[in-house]
Amino acid sequence: MCVSTCFWKTKKMMVDNKQVIFKGYIERAPKETDMGIKITKLDLHAPEGSSSFLVKNLYLSCDPYMRGRMRHSFDSYIPPFVPGQAIDGFGVSKVVDSDNPDFKPGDLISGFTGWEEYSLIQKPQQLRKIQPDDDIPLSYHVGLLGMPGLTAYAGFYEVCSPKKGEYVFVSAASGAVGQLVGQLAKLHGCYVVGSAGSGQKVDLLKSKLGFDEAFNYNEEPDLDAALKRCFPQGIDIYFDNVGGLMLDAALVNMRIHGRVAVCGMVSQHGHYDPQGIHNLFSLVRKRITMKGFLQSDYLHLYPQFMEHVVSNYRQGKIVYIEDMNEGLESAPAAFTGLFSGKNVGKQVVCVARE
Amino acid sequence: MCVSTCFWKTKKMMVDNKQVIFKGYIERAPKETDMGIKITKLDLHAPEGSSSFLVKNLYLSCDPYMRGRMRHSFDSYIPPFVPGQAIDGFGVSKVVDSDNPDFKPGDLISGFTGWEEYSLIQKPQQLRKIQPDDDIPLSYHVGLLGMPGLTAYAGFYEVCSPKKGEYVFVSAASGAVGQLVGQLAKLHGCYVVGSAGSGQKVDLLKSKLGFDEAFNYNEEPDLDAALKRCFPQGIDIYFDNVGGLMLDAALVNMRIHGRVAVCGMVSQHGHYDPQGIHNLFSLVRKRITMKGFLQSDYLHLYPQFMEHVVSNYRQGKIVYIEDMNEGLESAPAAFTGLFSGKNVGKQVVCVARE
Repeated sequence: MCVSTCFWKTKKMMVDNKQVIFKGYIERAPKETDMGIKITKLDLHAPEGSSSFLVKNLYLSCDPYMRGRMRHSFDSYIPPFVPGQAIDGFGVSKVVDSDNPDFKPGDLISGFTGWEEYSLIQKPQQLRKIQPDDDIPLSYHVGLLGMPGLTAYAGFYEVCSPKKGEYVFVSAASGAVGQLVGQLAKLHGCYVVGSAGSGQKVDLLKSKLGFDEAFNYNEEPDLDAALKRCFPQGIDIYFDNVGGLMLDAALVNMRIHGRVAVCGMVSQHGHYDPQGIHNLFSLVRKRITMKGFLQSDYLHLYPQFMEHVVSNYRQGKIVYIEDMNEGLESAPAAFTGLFSGKNVGKQVVCVARE
Repeated sequence: MCVSTCFWKTKKMMVDNKQVIFKGYIERAPKETDMGIKITKLDLHAPEGSSSFLVKNLYLSCDPYMRGRMRHSFDSYIPPFVPGQAIDGFGVSKVVDSDNPDFKPGDLISGFTGWEEYSLIQKPQQLRKIQPDDDIPLSYHVGLLGMPGLTAYAGFYEVCSPKKGEYVFVSAASGAVGQLVGQLAKLHGCYVVGSAGSGQKVDLLKSKLGFDEAFNYNEEPDLDAALKRCFPQGIDIYFDNVGGLMLDAALVNMRIHGRVAVCGMVSQHGHYDPQGIHNLFSLVRKRITMKGFLQSDYLHLYPQFMEHVVSNYRQGKIVYIEDMNEGLESAPAAFTGLFSGKNVGKQVVCVARE
């Protein structure tokens, strides 16, 4: 390694770098053709004095919030993608060359990276070093132990203020966030019901993820009736991953002093929800608190989140379902599949295993 | 007085009792013809062993939440009116006869009473004795010092968690609740803008109630533009008395970590808001907390509320605008006027001055 490093200092080390390029802004749901594959040349050498480093990307995370970055919005909480450039998002990567003393070749990291084989990291964002662990898959660092995991943890404990014995409803319950919310709620002594979009997912919720009850919203002509059947006594906590009709139905089924944690996907309706939410009168009558949140406001909780989740995972009390696509070329299909519910569990793309 | 009391113990003391009767359930906005005037006979004598007492009603409160009681709803936070019987609501009354040792003839009280000249109080609700005070009008006990006052106080301090220097928007700002919210916010060191439905009300907000800015929503073709003009830097706190289009416009103008206190009137849209709220995506992006509340959850704050408001009132730092109708017969018009914004300030009906 030293030999090649010395070599890099004096000579360029050009490689082919496959990338997933963002083509241009859209308002509708993303299609595979909104992205394209491109091969560029990259110098696998971190420029001297730049404090940057080069990584080989191993696992890339497909997250619903990324749809918001495909719109040319002027005031989102995260800047839009740049047309013609590689998409970026959370990933797990390995350092291959570095001009930054904090990151050495061979280090494993999770944080923002490009949808490409190799990335030059100039400004590390939400970046953490990973201590490789035999019993925890590396890809979990963009799921169970990454942004979706912290979203579930902060959303459930900080936003929902749960109490033992309360009635908890989770939508998109088999997804990257929902599956952990449900398991945390069960560990907390709550009664937990999840909704999902297929019979397979409903089975997983009940058989593998420990939900008390689950239903397939595609088979429910009346969501209000479905919730009344699952929660005859009402809902104390609704962890909302979807917004829209499900939120409207949940609002009228909330109990007094209920709490609604509004998670990222509601923003995916765009900058104007054409259907609208009609049952906000429930907020007053039931004295409901409805709170939007982003995990980035809770990064200080990361150590306690990790301790809680890893400890329960090692004891077999928390499991995590991933949907792994193989190869960078599969990333556009994996990402667009999120919006039709094709993924079963957290959607990850494996670019390389090491 | 003793002579007549002794007389009542042995003989009935029948009087004519004028009442405002609720005719029957409606779904639309109330009309005067939904109520009628009726004369009944009443024995001005509290039955022995009943613990009840008879009051002469002095001031009756017209409040928007009462519209909800005109619907035959099965799960409201307060039971519907009974067709054929007198409407009931908050009022200031004087005890004229009592079988309850805690209430003596001559005592002044505020609490739930009937829309009639005399009421027999069997189960006191939110009832408080009033110590008459030369510098505080009795009618203020259904306004500034009553339910609307506590709504403003608890809503602003407990629900909105205000900080000095924050930007506060109040809708229905000259109403019973809004005018106090605005003044409390100014006393707290906030920048305060109010909306109201007429030029006269806007003038009052600026000239008498100390708002920094105010606008007439009837003269604003674009509420979003009006809010952007008044709050170029955005809104930290929205005290929402109206819901609907104004709430939708406020949501997109909230600042990060903004708070929306959802007060009673939003529930007045009925059990289904046909327009719907379209901009809830802002909850996530701006991490907004939206909280419905009822003053009845904050009755424990009553002593500190009274101390704060009375002290500031006596120092001339808080004023209160009332719209007083004379005579019980005027009550139906006074009440229905609330829903077209006829009232300027807190709407009260004077039945008798003593």
